[in-house]
Amino acid sequence: MSASFPETPRIAIIGAGALGCYYGARLVKAGEDVHILARSGRAALTAQGLKVKTPTERITARKVHIYGSSAEIGPCDLVIIATKATANEALRQVLPPLLKPDTVVLTLQNGLGVEEPVAEVAGPDRVIGAICYIGCVRTAPGVVACSFPGLMTIGKFGKPAGERTHAVAALWRRAGVKCTAQDNLELQRWHKLVWNVPFNGLAIVAGVTTDVLLADEGLRLLARRIMEEVVEAAAKFGHEIPRSFVDLQFERTAKMAAYRPSSLIDFEEGRDLEIEEIWGEPVRRAKSVGAAVPRMEMLYWLIKQRIAQRNAQLKAKARKR
Amino acid sequence: MSASFPETPRIAIIGAGALGCYYGARLVKAGEDVHILARSGRAALTAQGLKVKTPTERITARKVHIYGSSAEIGPCDLVIIATKATANEALRQVLPPLLKPDTVVLTLQNGLGVEEPVAEVAGPDRVIGAICYIGCVRTAPGVVACSFPGLMTIGKFGKPAGERTHAVAALWRRAGVKCTAQDNLELQRWHKLVWNVPFNGLAIVAGVTTDVLLADEGLRLLARRIMEEVVEAAAKFGHEIPRSFVDLQFERTAKMAAYRPSSLIDFEEGRDLEIEEIWGEPVRRAKSVGAAVPRMEMLYWLIKQRIAQRNAQLKAKARKR
Repeated sequence: MSASFPETPRIAIIGAGALGCYYGARLVKAGEDVHILARSGRAALTAQGLKVKTPTERITARKVHIYGSSAEIGPCDLVIIATKATANEALRQVLPPLLKPDTVVLTLQNGLGVEEPVAEVAGPDRVIGAICYIGCVRTAPGVVACSFPGLMTIGKFGKPAGERTHAVAALWRRAGVKCTAQDNLELQRWHKLVWNVPFNGLAIVAGVTTDVLLADEGLRLLARRIMEEVVEAAAKFGHEIPRSFVDLQFERTAKMAAYRPSSLIDFEEGRDLEIEEIWGEPVRRAKSVGAAVPRMEMLYWLIKQRIAQRNAQLKAKARKR
Repeated sequence: MSASFPETPRIAIIGAGALGCYYGARLVKAGEDVHILARSGRAALTAQGLKVKTPTERITARKVHIYGSSAEIGPCDLVIIATKATANEALRQVLPPLLKPDTVVLTLQNGLGVEEPVAEVAGPDRVIGAICYIGCVRTAPGVVACSFPGLMTIGKFGKPAGERTHAVAALWRRAGVKCTAQDNLELQRWHKLVWNVPFNGLAIVAGVTTDVLLADEGLRLLARRIMEEVVEAAAKFGHEIPRSFVDLQFERTAKMAAYRPSSLIDFEEGRDLEIEEIWGEPVRRAKSVGAAVPRMEMLYWLIKQRIAQRNAQLKAKARKR
């Protein structure tokens, strides 16, 4: 990443799910040159554009460029990966046509081990990871309901933030996204896991929203124990997360009322989940450095079984039709 | 327990569930003097007697003595508690009319801490505990389907087996129940927990039969880890359970095919469960001596939440009617 980042970058967004549409709408609205790769619903997206509703704003981007293949888009300055990590196998085909020597690739995916598949295709030196604190759902093609627009933290894969990481953060801020560039991407990822591992996980296993989790004495204590395991595992990698951060998670969650974590929504609506990135990989990394994570591992196993069971039920239902 | 046990004891059985009916039928058939206290279905029980079907036999006890209160039964030589531990609060009223100075009280309940409530009412010195290895369900009043007649281990509460413990074991053997008297009742209870804690527990949390648990790689490993926690906790109390016993559980469970643990049946049919005796008390005792039982504790919390959720759903349903 030696070349400086252009003033008006050509931007590709891979994926027109909730994140792709939300951030896409913001960028289009800010006048950026955005090209969206959508697996489905392209006619509706082209005809109706993007519509985002947040608690304080309505963003409408009527004219958007929608594509069915990355070859049609061609090389870009910035590629934003807004698909799930479960679709990362496809990056080997999807990414190359979008790349030129100085393209920056930004992945919005959750969990650990999400930069590596991008680095394998694009090379490690141009990969940036984003941690998105956001609550939004896609309710129809191009239509996103955003309950919590949140903020975004970005960092360079395996290295401190450079000039281009800061340029990408500035691009987001111009588009109205609160974004900061940080020097330690992995520490940021572990920070987000502190909430995601217990709350997304227990929501699936117990099948309940965050208010129910907090109201149950055992589950509330369990969420805390799991958070402590995440903090201790992160510490083994030299990532210091203060204990007060754990308390803060409970204070914040209490304010979220009956929040349906994204994993619970995906689970209930029969969609793929980032099991390995949010639960499997953190457990494997923790164990590889001798961190004791019995509850995280148990949660991982329970989630995996639950999703396997759901998938078997969906398959049986589909067969009946 | 100084007096010797009579040749033909007057026997009371508290509870006409699966266990009460199964063991009651065996005792009646063996010519014993049996008096059964039943909370409900008394007319049917009196009219039709007890019917038990095992893989190899059919036992019919046409004439049985059924009662609605323990006062009607009066003092007995042996009182068999065949209700759930969740009903133990009632023992304060139910037990006293059945007792005379030398009455032996035998509890068939599962888990830890089940002798204590009996001892509080009847005094510790005449309490015997039984660990029943049996698979049976009550399909109608007095009708029991027994998939695995199993065996019974009995022991005196807090002391080595005495003359009367051996006499009770001999009574069971005369009635066709494989029964041995052991000197260390608590060790026997921990033995049974090795299977009950993971398999009954995970069956509830995952909502599946034992074959599904064994077929799932994560849950199978989790069951093993939980068993190891039980074994380590027992060891802290001086109860040595060999590691080979853990392997044996998996071999035996594999032969059980699609077995529905009794707790899963109770859970699915909306009945009370012995949560504290099977999960809560073992966790508390283990922690009191510094044993690390993170998975057992997590399982306990998940089960409690799941049952609370089920009870709330049942209540909401009942309100709608």
